[in-house]
Amino acid sequence: MKKYFPILRWAPSYGAGAFGDDMLAASIVTIMLIPQSLAYALIAGLPPEAGLYASILPLVAYAIFGTSSTLAVGPVAVVSLMTAAAIGRMMETGSADYAAAAMALALLTGLMLLALGALRLGFLANFLSHPIIAGFITASGVLIAASQLKHIFGISGGGDNVFEILESLIVHIGDLNWATVAVGALSIVFLFWSRNHLATALRAIGLDDKLAASAAKAGPLLAVTGTTAAAYFLGLDAKGVAIVGDVPRGLPDLSPPAFDADLWRELAGPAFLIAIIGYVESISVAQTLAAKRRERIDLDQEMIGLGAANIASGVSGGFPVTGGFARSVVNFDAGARTPAAGAFSAVGIALAAMFLTPLLYYLPKATLAATIIVAVLSLVNVGVIKRTWTYSKSDFAAMMITIAGVFAFGVEVGVVAGIILSILLLLYRASKPHYAIVGQVPGTEHFRNVARHNVITSPAIAAIRIDGNLFFANARFLEDHVMALAADQPKLKHIVLMCSAINEIDGSALESLEAINERLSHAGLSFHLSEVKGPVMDRLKRTHFLETLNGRVFLSQFEAMHALDPEIFKVPNGAG
Amino acid sequence: MKKYFPILRWAPSYGAGAFGDDMLAASIVTIMLIPQSLAYALIAGLPPEAGLYASILPLVAYAIFGTSSTLAVGPVAVVSLMTAAAIGRMMETGSADYAAAAMALALLTGLMLLALGALRLGFLANFLSHPIIAGFITASGVLIAASQLKHIFGISGGGDNVFEILESLIVHIGDLNWATVAVGALSIVFLFWSRNHLATALRAIGLDDKLAASAAKAGPLLAVTGTTAAAYFLGLDAKGVAIVGDVPRGLPDLSPPAFDADLWRELAGPAFLIAIIGYVESISVAQTLAAKRRERIDLDQEMIGLGAANIASGVSGGFPVTGGFARSVVNFDAGARTPAAGAFSAVGIALAAMFLTPLLYYLPKATLAATIIVAVLSLVNVGVIKRTWTYSKSDFAAMMITIAGVFAFGVEVGVVAGIILSILLLLYRASKPHYAIVGQVPGTEHFRNVARHNVITSPAIAAIRIDGNLFFANARFLEDHVMALAADQPKLKHIVLMCSAINEIDGSALESLEAINERLSHAGLSFHLSEVKGPVMDRLKRTHFLETLNGRVFLSQFEAMHALDPEIFKVPNGAG
Repeated sequence: MKKYFPILRWAPSYGAGAFGDDMLAASIVTIMLIPQSLAYALIAGLPPEAGLYASILPLVAYAIFGTSSTLAVGPVAVVSLMTAAAIGRMMETGSADYAAAAMALALLTGLMLLALGALRLGFLANFLSHPIIAGFITASGVLIAASQLKHIFGISGGGDNVFEILESLIVHIGDLNWATVAVGALSIVFLFWSRNHLATALRAIGLDDKLAASAAKAGPLLAVTGTTAAAYFLGLDAKGVAIVGDVPRGLPDLSPPAFDADLWRELAGPAFLIAIIGYVESISVAQTLAAKRRERIDLDQEMIGLGAANIASGVSGGFPVTGGFARSVVNFDAGARTPAAGAFSAVGIALAAMFLTPLLYYLPKATLAATIIVAVLSLVNVGVIKRTWTYSKSDFAAMMITIAGVFAFGVEVGVVAGIILSILLLLYRASKPHYAIVGQVPGTEHFRNVARHNVITSPAIAAIRIDGNLFFANARFLEDHVMALAADQPKLKHIVLMCSAINEIDGSALESLEAINERLSHAGLSFHLSEVKGPVMDRLKRTHFLETLNGRVFLSQFEAMHALDPEIFKVPNGAG
Repeated sequence: MKKYFPILRWAPSYGAGAFGDDMLAASIVTIMLIPQSLAYALIAGLPPEAGLYASILPLVAYAIFGTSSTLAVGPVAVVSLMTAAAIGRMMETGSADYAAAAMALALLTGLMLLALGALRLGFLANFLSHPIIAGFITASGVLIAASQLKHIFGISGGGDNVFEILESLIVHIGDLNWATVAVGALSIVFLFWSRNHLATALRAIGLDDKLAASAAKAGPLLAVTGTTAAAYFLGLDAKGVAIVGDVPRGLPDLSPPAFDADLWRELAGPAFLIAIIGYVESISVAQTLAAKRRERIDLDQEMIGLGAANIASGVSGGFPVTGGFARSVVNFDAGARTPAAGAFSAVGIALAAMFLTPLLYYLPKATLAATIIVAVLSLVNVGVIKRTWTYSKSDFAAMMITIAGVFAFGVEVGVVAGIILSILLLLYRASKPHYAIVGQVPGTEHFRNVARHNVITSPAIAAIRIDGNLFFANARFLEDHVMALAADQPKLKHIVLMCSAINEIDGSALESLEAINERLSHAGLSFHLSEVKGPVMDRLKRTHFLETLNGRVFLSQFEAMHALDPEIFKVPNGAG
C-alpha cells in the first residue's frame, strides 16, 4: 500500500512543526503560482481560469501519489506550449472545443503516465539524451518568448514556428498599440529588476534576510497588481490595451471531457510526447532537490504521481501539468517539508478562484506576456550549448538538429526529431561494441590490445576480446568482423574469442556464434572460446552450441594460446 | 570505382573456366527460377509475366553492383507476400493500377536501399533480432501456405491474416472443384517426392551423382510441364481448373511507373519494411555462402546492390526482389564462380519470356500454388522456436508476439510489432548496465564484486564498478543508483566510481556525473573516480568536471580505498 500511496509514509506522523513549515512554503508558492498559472494558460491558448483549475486538483493528486517532498506540480511553460501545438491545429483558440480538447489531452497524458508507471516502463525516458532535452528546452524558451511578443506589441499574429511568428509580427507591426507596449515594456523592466534587486531593496527598508528573499518572489504578483490597477484607473482598455476580461468565479466542475474516439486518436501522439517530456523534466528537478536531503525518488511511482495529477487536471477543467523547476526550488528554499505543502498551495489557488477572479478583469494581457518572457528566458541556456560543443561534436549535432527542428517546424517536430536521433544514436552505438585484437605481454600471462601495447602474436591465431555483452544489436558486427579476419588473413588457422567482459549472450548472439562456428568450419578454421564466465557457460550448456563448436573452451586466454601455438606462447619463467 | 562497382573486381580477369562453371550454374538456376518466378508473382497478386520481368534486369543490376559471387536475386516468397499486403488494400488485384503500384513499390524500395547504403546506415538492420526475424519468417510461411489453399481447392477467397483466410475458405468450401484438387494434390505429392527422392531415382537409372543432383532441381519445372500437358490434353479448363491463360510474349517495356505523390507516400512505409526485411534475409544468405569460400560481403555495398536490383525491377514491369535462400544455395552448389552466373540466368529468363510464354497458357494455377506451398513450408522452422524457448524466455516472448502479430493482423503489423519490440528490448538493456559494488580481496590489491566474493568493505565507502560505457541510455540509471546508495546508507561518507571498464563517457553521462557530484556535495558526501582510462581522462580534462569534483581521481581502486580508509584497507604484505 505504501508503495502506491506514498502519502501513507508521511501523513500518519504529520505534526504541527511540519504544518507550519509547509504552510509558509505554500503561501510563497501560491503568490508565484497565481500569475504563472494565468500566464501559462495564455501560452496554452486557454482562458485564464484554466490555469487556476490546473493548479488545484493536480497538486492534491500529486501530494497523494508523488514521492518528492518538494516538487511543485502545475502548469509549466514548455508543456503549455506543447498543448497549444497539439490542439491549435485542430480547434479554434478560445472555443469550448479547444478547452475540452485540452482536458482530454491532460486525461490522455495522465493515463499514459499511469500505464507506463504500472508497467514499470520508466526506463523509456532514458532514450532522450541530455543534449537533446537541453536543446529542446532552450529552443522552446525562444519559441515561447517569440510567441508572446504580439501581446507586448498589442497586435494579432500567430504561428507554430519561429519563422511564422516573426513573419506575422512583421505583417502586423503597423497595428502597434503604444499603450500596450508601455505596459509590457514596463512590466518586463520591473520583473527583471525585481528578480535581481527586489530582495536587496526590501532588506534596505528593514526586512530581515529570509522574509526579504521570500517577499521578492512576489515580483510577478506586484506587476500584475500594479498594471491591473493602472488599467482600471487610467482606462487603458479604452486605449486599446487588451485585458483579461471576465473570469468565471468559483471552483471548476468535476467532469471528464466527453469521449470522442477520433479526437483521442489524434491526441494520442502529442499526449505521449507531453508525458515523456513532462516526466523527464519533472524527475530531474525532483532528484536534484531530493538529493539535498538524502531522500529517494521512486522513478516508476513518479510516473504514477504525475499521471494522477494529469488525470485530476483532465477532469477539472485544466490542461497538462508537470513538476515546475522554478516553483519547486522556491518551495524547497522556503522550507516545505512534505507534499502537504502542495496541497496547501492548491487551497490557496482554490480561494483565489473563488474570490479574486473579479479583480483580474482589468489585468492587461501584456503583463502576463511579460511574466512569461522573463520566466522562459531563464530556460535559454547558451552555456550548455557551448559545453556540448567542447565535449562532443556528435552530441552537439544532435542538439542543433533538435533546436533547428523546433525553430523551423515547431515543438512537436523538434522533439520527434530528437527522439529519432537518440534512437539512431543508440542503435549505432549498440551495433559497434568496443573490441580489441589481443596479444601476449612478453614475460607474463596477460593479454592486451595489440593496437596499444607491444605484444606477441601468431600469424595462425587471431584472439579477439569483446568488451561488452553480445546481443542482437552487435551480433552481426561480430559475425562480420570475425569473417573479415578469416577472409583477410589467409594464414589464419584459429580464432579465439576472449569472453572475459561478456556477462550475457542473448538468442541472436548465440545464433551468430553458431553461424560463425559453421562458417569457420567450412573455411577450415577452428573457433575457440576463452575465459567464459560461469553464468554464461551455464546457459551455453543448455544449448547444442558447445557440442557443435569445432574448437575448444579454454579457462584462460594464455592457456588457449599456449595450447594452440606452444612455440610462440611460452610459459613465463616464475610468477605471472 | 571498384568499391561502388564490384563488377570491376572480377570482370577484367573473367576467363573461359569461370564462364563454363557460371553457365552450368545459371542453367540449373533458370530451371528453378521459371516456375518460382511465376509462383511468386501469384503470391504478390500479379500476373505471371511480372515474375519473369522481376527475374531479368534485377539480376543484371545485382551482377554489376552486388558483392556476393553466388547470391541469386529475384522474387522471393516473403517479399512477395509483403508486396501483396502493401498494395492489396489500395488496388484491385489484376488491375493495371495494381501492377503499376508494384513497380512503384520496387522503385521506392530500391531508392531507400540506395540511400541507406550511401549513408552507411547498414547498421540499422541490426535492430531486428534473430528471434524476431525467425518468428516473422515462420509465420509468413504459414500465412503464404494458407493463402494458396484457395488455388488448390479451386475456390475464391482471400484475406490478410490467417483468420480471415480460414474464414473465407470455410465460407467458399462448397464451391470446391475436384479436378483442381486433383491437380493440386498430385503436384504437392510429386514435389515432396521429387525433393526427397528424385535424385536417387535419377541415379538409379544411371545418371552420375552430380548430374542427378542438378536434374532433381527440375522437380517444379516437371510438375509445371506435366500438369500443363494434362490440362491441354484433358481439357481441364473446361472442367473448372483455373489456368494461367494469356501471358504476353516478349521483354518488358523499360519505363518507370508514373509518379503519384499520394501513392508514393502510402507506399513509403511498406517499402521501408520490405527494404529492411529483404536486406536482412539476403545478407544472411550471402554471408553464409561467402564464408564457405573465405570471401567477404560488404554490408553497405550490398544495400547498393540490392537497391540497384529493385530499381531495375521497378522500371521493367517487376516488383520488389531480394536474394533468395534456396536458389542461392543451388547456384553455389552448382559451382557458380562469379556474379556473371546471375546475368546468365537473366538471359535464360529473357529467352523464356520471348519464346515460352505461349506454352504457359494451360498451366493450372493449382500447380503454382502447390510449388509455393512446398517451397514455403521449408520456411516454417519449429526447431528454432523450441531452441529459443530453451535458451531465453524473453527472446521467446518477442518471437511469439511477432508470430501472433502476423497470424492475427497480417505481415506488416507482425514486422512492425517485431521492430518496436526489438527497440524496446534494446532500450531496456541499454538502460541497465552491468555493475557491481566491489570490495578488497583479502591480502591482495584486487577488488571484486561483493555479491560473489568474500571481500573487505567499509561502511563509510561505497565502491561501484560499472562494466560498460556511460552514455545517455544508462546515465539516469547511474544517477538513480548512486543517489539510492547515499539515501539508504546514512553512514556513507565516500562514493568511489571504479572506471576500469569505461571506454567512453558521452555528454549526457558527463552531465549525470556533474549532477551526482553536486547532489553528493549537498548531502555531505565525497565523490571519487578510480582507474580512469587515458582517452576518457583526456576528454574529461577538456571540461570543468574535474575542477568541480569534490573528491579525487585515483590511479587504482586500491589507492583510493587505502587513502580514504587506511585502517580497513591495508597494504598487503609482499606482492599484490
